Amino acid sequence: MRAIVLDDSGVRVDDAHPEPCAGDGEVVVDVLRAGVCATDLALVRGYMDFRGVLGHEFVGRATSGAFAGRRVVGEINAGCGACARCAAGDPRHCERRSVLGILARDGAFAERLSLPERNLLAVPDGVDDDAAILTEPLAAAYGIVERLGGAVPERALVVGDGRLGLLCALALADSGASVEVLGRHADRQAIFDASHPRGPRPRHLGRPLAPDTRMDRVPLVVEASGRADLLDAAVGLVEPRGTLVLKTTTERAPSVDTARWVVDEIAVVGSRCGRFAPALDALARGLVPHERFVAERYPLRDGERALDRAAAGGVLKVAIDILPR
Amino acid sequence: MRAIVLDDSGVRVDDAHPEPCAGDGEVVVDVLRAGVCATDLALVRGYMDFRGVLGHEFVGRATSGAFAGRRVVGEINAGCGACARCAAGDPRHCERRSVLGILARDGAFAERLSLPERNLLAVPDGVDDDAAILTEPLAAAYGIVERLGGAVPERALVVGDGRLGLLCALALADSGASVEVLGRHADRQAIFDASHPRGPRPRHLGRPLAPDTRMDRVPLVVEASGRADLLDAAVGLVEPRGTLVLKTTTERAPSVDTARWVVDEIAVVGSRCGRFAPALDALARGLVPHERFVAERYPLRDGERALDRAAAGGVLKVAIDILPR
Repeated sequence: MRAIVLDDSGVRVDDAHPEPCAGDGEVVVDVLRAGVCATDLALVRGYMDFRGVLGHEFVGRATSGAFAGRRVVGEINAGCGACARCAAGDPRHCERRSVLGILARDGAFAERLSLPERNLLAVPDGVDDDAAILTEPLAAAYGIVERLGGAVPERALVVGDGRLGLLCALALADSGASVEVLGRHADRQAIFDASHPRGPRPRHLGRPLAPDTRMDRVPLVVEASGRADLLDAAVGLVEPRGTLVLKTTTERAPSVDTARWVVDEIAVVGSRCGRFAPALDALARGLVPHERFVAERYPLRDGERALDRAAAGGVLKVAIDILPR
Repeated sequence: MRAIVLDDSGVRVDDAHPEPCAGDGEVVVDVLRAGVCATDLALVRGYMDFRGVLGHEFVGRATSGAFAGRRVVGEINAGCGACARCAAGDPRHCERRSVLGILARDGAFAERLSLPERNLLAVPDGVDDDAAILTEPLAAAYGIVERLGGAVPERALVVGDGRLGLLCALALADSGASVEVLGRHADRQAIFDASHPRGPRPRHLGRPLAPDTRMDRVPLVVEASGRADLLDAAVGLVEPRGTLVLKTTTERAPSVDTARWVVDEIAVVGSRCGRFAPALDALARGLVPHERFVAERYPLRDGERALDRAAAGGVLKVAIDILPR
């Protein structure tokens, strides 16, 4: 099959990649469309030392099992199925997990992929393919709500107006918070204006976070800028006993003023993957104006160009169409 | 009155320091005994730019008000009394607070001090003066339980076996956790052996934390070593979705691997002051073998020697006796 593969010499389109080998309890999925994520670009730069088929944001059609013939999305962490975490129904921190297109498992930039059947969710008819490929990043945004134990405060600030920052702002607004956003792209207010959260629409402040940014401190700040070097500045916007949620990976933070975290009793909370169900529900309700996210599409055979385009920036989401050959 | 004063030229005993000026709702307390804390030594080195009478761990006798004539201890944060935090009964993060011997308020290394009456608690008869001066640091240890919302996991690791580390271990053991301690002083196991927590007694592992320390990861790690440079190593001992509680102040942490916090969804939670009530209750129950903590006593007139002795290390608690002249 055709696939976009990362190996020691870099990224290439492989027209004769081995078919996915579905293990016990797994289902092969014909991929329909996939999305390029900043993590894919980080993997190409060496993050996680991943080798194999890239891609973890997808919508496809299950070829067997309970979902046979239906459109599906899939949670990306595949657990061992035997440990206490897996037994509790959450493989996201299974020590022996594989992760679609990220860790020890071929990904979604391919004609077919394989995932455990328990990872799959059927996509409602009202959610089209461009919306469905946003399920994984939107789930990561709702993962913030999960990490807060559902206790979303009235006010929140999101640092970063890239794709993940926007989705975090929408997920928090959908959870009732009044959300402000710091970022470089003030024109992205139009995306918020076209959104339908259950709470008030987020408001872009028209400027990015800087080391000298001064504004009212808030109970919740989400760091989704991809810039770990601004951690001190971001914590400086959290009120005492408030929380900073960290979404940025792939970089070490430089020297940080942890004494302030103690004096102000700040909690710095890491957040990675979320559950798909609340994200699919929100997409079905029309929370996200997805047509404003998916700006460009490339066929699978042009995979290298798709990744280059995503890396060049200025576009929120590059999609890869997996056309039947 | 006599007091140990920090000014621009350093620490000195002032025999003619002005009496404390009790504001509205405040009570003057005759100090009986005080304890030297690592924070006092940090203040001398320049932390917080404090100038005035040092000292915030004390037991004394109230001279007026509801506690007149009784032995008292006092919470050290004095709020404005008017803001939302103060109105909610918690001045610890009042933006206009003063802090006894730390921020804009003369402290306890003096014949008399002043605090709001609402900050005072009567000391039970069974708690002697050497135990009572441990109320403040023990309250800071129970502050961890408060920051965890009472959800203390079954297993915990405390990094640091100085005075605060030991009290953190005892507070967590008293809350039911099975606690292990990393530190340089394996002989401090004797203190745990003489303690009476409601859960199992803590266990000293006989070695300090090092950058290459490998052991089973636990759901809760408390960083009370005073060494912010070991933050990465400490986080490495927290299991996924676990918590690291930060107690260490006064230092910036060097470059930290925040990507790991995201991938493992670690929460790094700052903790400063705790409420006195649970600490006094624990002291009354005999949790802490206080006679093993308070190793040396100096009269107030020898205040400089007392601070030098505390700074030299090797002693858990240096006490200052405030003898009537």
